[in-house]
Amino acid sequence: MNIEMIRAAQTRLAGVARHTPLLGSPFLDEIAGRRVWIKPECLQHTGSFKFRGAWSALSALDDKVRSRGVIAYSSGNHAQGVALAARMHGVPAVIIMPADSPRLKIANTRTYGAEVVLYDRATESREEIGDRISAERGLTLVKPYDDPQVIAGQGTTGLEIAAQAAEFGITQADVIVCCGGGGLSSGIALALAADAPGLRVRPAEPEGFDDAARSLREGRIQRNERLTGSICDAIVTPQPGELTFPILKDRAGPGLVVSDDEALRAMAQAFNRLKLVAEPGGAVALAAALFRTDEIEGDDVIVTISGGNVDTDIFARALATLDRPE
Amino acid sequence: MNIEMIRAAQTRLAGVARHTPLLGSPFLDEIAGRRVWIKPECLQHTGSFKFRGAWSALSALDDKVRSRGVIAYSSGNHAQGVALAARMHGVPAVIIMPADSPRLKIANTRTYGAEVVLYDRATESREEIGDRISAERGLTLVKPYDDPQVIAGQGTTGLEIAAQAAEFGITQADVIVCCGGGGLSSGIALALAADAPGLRVRPAEPEGFDDAARSLREGRIQRNERLTGSICDAIVTPQPGELTFPILKDRAGPGLVVSDDEALRAMAQAFNRLKLVAEPGGAVALAAALFRTDEIEGDDVIVTISGGNVDTDIFARALATLDRPE
Repeated sequence: MNIEMIRAAQTRLAGVARHTPLLGSPFLDEIAGRRVWIKPECLQHTGSFKFRGAWSALSALDDKVRSRGVIAYSSGNHAQGVALAARMHGVPAVIIMPADSPRLKIANTRTYGAEVVLYDRATESREEIGDRISAERGLTLVKPYDDPQVIAGQGTTGLEIAAQAAEFGITQADVIVCCGGGGLSSGIALALAADAPGLRVRPAEPEGFDDAARSLREGRIQRNERLTGSICDAIVTPQPGELTFPILKDRAGPGLVVSDDEALRAMAQAFNRLKLVAEPGGAVALAAALFRTDEIEGDDVIVTISGGNVDTDIFARALATLDRPE
Repeated sequence: MNIEMIRAAQTRLAGVARHTPLLGSPFLDEIAGRRVWIKPECLQHTGSFKFRGAWSALSALDDKVRSRGVIAYSSGNHAQGVALAARMHGVPAVIIMPADSPRLKIANTRTYGAEVVLYDRATESREEIGDRISAERGLTLVKPYDDPQVIAGQGTTGLEIAAQAAEFGITQADVIVCCGGGGLSSGIALALAADAPGLRVRPAEPEGFDDAARSLREGRIQRNERLTGSICDAIVTPQPGELTFPILKDRAGPGLVVSDDEALRAMAQAFNRLKLVAEPGGAVALAAALFRTDEIEGDDVIVTISGGNVDTDIFARALATLDRPE
């Protein structure tokens, strides 16, 4: 895993993935007490950064291997990324999804043409199901984060951030990244180390599912005690990846942890101030920038909004926080 | 009013206004039966394209004149654009706003540092109030649309659309533009005539407030019978402008008219498929592309989302349309 793989992925993604802008708002700067810069990957194809890693992985496969099809397990964003990348390559895709995934994500994955297999997140292992089906049909498993080509694809986000930060004259800043298994965080960390060494990744997670923060603190991989009960479905994983964690251990700063309520309030600010739709897991980095200001240093902070695939009932809960007395 | 003024405005706006992307979604293509391309000016500073025209107008003023301050009348988006452009130039701004403007727009305009004067849209003339205060304080009036430098600023959106369409290989298409007084529509029309002559502006308006469509049909300016009662507050004006209408008459295709319900459904699709927040008036062009498909020709259609400054109660109404049985 190295920077050349990320640059090669960027070449394969050119003209396919969207180059997302770097946005800001004086209202958010005021809340945070420093300049806040937003990398809105909710505007990426399929509504999350996951399309980058999926395209990177599929485009790196041998033609013959790829033509038999691919399989993925995902609560929804990786699912959609793989489904669309497979459709664009003209190959079949099977997606293993938790039965409690947001309805929108399940419906979209099917609409992209993938075959969806649902499983129980609390009692079944998605890896076992995935392995069995891949073996039966000769499918190639596209892992959600612990795969070098997936990390390389997500890392293209970091190359863009490095170039955009330079354009705006930002040489020192924390880059807060919504973190599940660590594919996006580790990819961005590698890209920044090469192209913007004054920028440092800080993984952000929801309370109770802070495996990355605890792992970084302990210096070795820690697991989450439970895998259900967060509204941040997109970034709830059992533990940091075997490939991603060593990268984060070397290069990332301490993790940031926010409450579900802070994630909802950040979604409301994204609606109000950026005109962007963020999902709860995609809003934890912005939440950390806005509401955990004491744990961040410097005059600038950069945050990812990693996805925007949210059902209307959860979005309505986020909007309701705007009417709450301060 | 000519293309050179638009190019000069583009130079003044460089590094200040955002260059918004051109987005799409296969889900929207399916609804529309053709490729739909979105120019999301809701991502512009202050949440609407109006910042372009305001910056263009203020930056074109003589230093001495500008330093005395500016005044504007607006239901909210022009207000915010002028307020922010004035703050960035370090000069005072007075904004005359209808008392029934969305709360968010009034609050934001004040937060940008402007003095807000409210008036009754049904019984008072904003022009009279504006003229009186400008005379008293030596302020320069920045008109919302019937001003060459404002039209030039809005026209920069058209230069971007022309370049982006070329990049995606689109040489023939209707460009549906949310239309109030016609500043954005006429500016884009002039830009396209110069840089992308196969693209044609089609103004979009809400039912009952279709002064531009009727004026184009009749060949002379028609007025709206009423000025209240639409959720599309941003684009309800008495009539097309004296400067903007002749441009539209020469260069625009027939107007498109959508219902408030269609605007709400388009907002829901922008939420669901683009992860963008659109306001009702900012969604009428997308509504026309999605729901008035028989009135549009060609394999591609380009639409503006002109703004995203919407209160939560209206946005909740838009989201509720997603749960409605088809």
